[in-house]
Amino acid sequence: MSTRREFIASGSAVVGATLLAGAALGAETPKVNRRIVLAKRPQGEPTPADFRLEEVPIAALKDGEMLLQTVYLSLDPYMRGRMSEAASYAASTELDQVMIGGTVSRIVASRNSRFKEGDLVNSFSGWQEYQVSTGMGITPLDPRIPKPSYALGVLGMPGLTAYVGTLDLGTPKAGETLVVAAATGAVGSVVGQIAKIKGLRAVGIAGGPEKCEYAVKELGFDACIDHRDANMPGLLKQACPKGIDVYFENVGGAVWDAVLPLLNTHARIPLCGLIAQYNATSLPAGPDRSSQLMATFLVKQIKVQGFIISTYYNRQAAFINDMSIWIRERRIKYREDITKGLENAPEAFMGLFKGNNFGKLLVQVSE
Amino acid sequence: MSTRREFIASGSAVVGATLLAGAALGAETPKVNRRIVLAKRPQGEPTPADFRLEEVPIAALKDGEMLLQTVYLSLDPYMRGRMSEAASYAASTELDQVMIGGTVSRIVASRNSRFKEGDLVNSFSGWQEYQVSTGMGITPLDPRIPKPSYALGVLGMPGLTAYVGTLDLGTPKAGETLVVAAATGAVGSVVGQIAKIKGLRAVGIAGGPEKCEYAVKELGFDACIDHRDANMPGLLKQACPKGIDVYFENVGGAVWDAVLPLLNTHARIPLCGLIAQYNATSLPAGPDRSSQLMATFLVKQIKVQGFIISTYYNRQAAFINDMSIWIRERRIKYREDITKGLENAPEAFMGLFKGNNFGKLLVQVSE
Repeated sequence: MSTRREFIASGSAVVGATLLAGAALGAETPKVNRRIVLAKRPQGEPTPADFRLEEVPIAALKDGEMLLQTVYLSLDPYMRGRMSEAASYAASTELDQVMIGGTVSRIVASRNSRFKEGDLVNSFSGWQEYQVSTGMGITPLDPRIPKPSYALGVLGMPGLTAYVGTLDLGTPKAGETLVVAAATGAVGSVVGQIAKIKGLRAVGIAGGPEKCEYAVKELGFDACIDHRDANMPGLLKQACPKGIDVYFENVGGAVWDAVLPLLNTHARIPLCGLIAQYNATSLPAGPDRSSQLMATFLVKQIKVQGFIISTYYNRQAAFINDMSIWIRERRIKYREDITKGLENAPEAFMGLFKGNNFGKLLVQVSE
Repeated sequence: MSTRREFIASGSAVVGATLLAGAALGAETPKVNRRIVLAKRPQGEPTPADFRLEEVPIAALKDGEMLLQTVYLSLDPYMRGRMSEAASYAASTELDQVMIGGTVSRIVASRNSRFKEGDLVNSFSGWQEYQVSTGMGITPLDPRIPKPSYALGVLGMPGLTAYVGTLDLGTPKAGETLVVAAATGAVGSVVGQIAKIKGLRAVGIAGGPEKCEYAVKELGFDACIDHRDANMPGLLKQACPKGIDVYFENVGGAVWDAVLPLLNTHARIPLCGLIAQYNATSLPAGPDRSSQLMATFLVKQIKVQGFIISTYYNRQAAFINDMSIWIRERRIKYREDITKGLENAPEAFMGLFKGNNFGKLLVQVSE
């Protein structure tokens, strides 16, 4: 990252020979980093032109630094927010900067006494093959994690989001009904399975019959509604004969419109995402239903709690403990959708908003 | 109430002589009840034609019954919801039924061993001078209440609403900023003073300079903004230099629009009323801002909690204890706006939506 400013290229960059000559890397350490930067800010849905693949030299390690090689890169809906100029809960990615993202990385060279070569770590290296790191924010992979990639999904940020949202904010009670969309995704699949563990009726919403069948047969949802069905609101109502007590909100849009009239008194709405509206370029046409929305929250005594998972890292230990047990006992099943090659990250990411992925979306950047 | 069906009159009713002859009341007990019924459902703001004053005979007391005489009738915004056909959190008042409402009543005759003549009780007798009661839902006035009328305000439902909303749902921390509208009203005035007791900056919103001055000089708000000022949003922003951490929502409308951009991350919104929109007959024009509203709750990790005070009666003992101490110590001040005579209840009630009252609105129905 330290060489970024020298190598802002308009197309794919050529590695500067003079800078490479100045790099004091060992014989075996790589000298070139491939990375994907934000080329321009998307208008609506991201397109390939919003990304740019670059090659840049890797600077020599200083004392205390280490070189991380990305093994798995996580692709998540929140990244769309960082591509926009408008302030969100975190700063935007600046133009020509590497796209941010959580990774599982391997230490390929270390001048940091706390980390040794060959170890796998949790990192936030972003959309690139290598990153020079001081070790700040880097943690070793928990030994209870059965597969390294799980640290980016069911035992990582999406899993913790499902855990905190469902248990801490959703306060589920046996016999209640929980609804979650993107029911086969990294978050939704775990939300539904936790609901089942806690004795709730779990109703999923997913895109297409194959995902719906998987949600019911493999994940154990009581029902799953295809949001592409023209009668989605009617089907959802049928699937929730006692109304909805917990709606784990991660999509917004048409699903939210179908959920709202089914909410019971004292319903809880943990709100962690609104993927259906991330690419919107203008507000929907009127009338303005926001006052009606607040009136519904009032008369039904509903709790809405927006949350960003970084606020809840104090729950990490309990989460890893519970989740690793549930996975071992096969009470939580988990599916991944892995794309190979950094260069394919933009297309895979764009597919997130079309529901092309089936399971947690990852890019395998190296073996 | 038991004679209601016999005496549905189209104008003011004349007491039926035959029924009166059948009533076996003692020499001193009153024989005629005056009451105000819902004559028709308001379209938008209530008008005098929506109410009807009637006189009906009082039935003889049976064993276990007692006759209550209304001393004070509370007038509250929630009553507007009961006048509408649409289901709210409680059933609508039916046409030709007595308008509902909390009262402080005196027992003028009793054939119930649990209650004795002359005592004052909390009742829900509605907009009428007398009510025959079995004692169900009737409780003696708490001896710590310094004035009977306080049982309908600072030591009653509005006070409990302020207490639960501010403390339990608002979770205030010293140094934070709380905003509340209707700042000199029954609820808002208590909300602001509790915030001051807890070490917060309290900013009120009220209608006109006289109320604003009272909020600051008498109630101890740090600032109070006149919502009639064309620059209300700008003034509110100036009054909240560190943003808003707790917004106690009881009005909605233009105040809510001004509050929303000032909310801090992790803000809490106890939501107990939306008086500014109770008389709306249609949704506001577009665009539809409801998706934007949810996005704000998400990125700012805001908690919205709709609440109806009847859910929180388990907090009554702690509330009466704390509040009676605060009143005794002059840390909570309280103002009443008392209209005399049942016949003036409709006009007083209609004035609530125009901000005509200055302090808790009551009708003194008898001495």
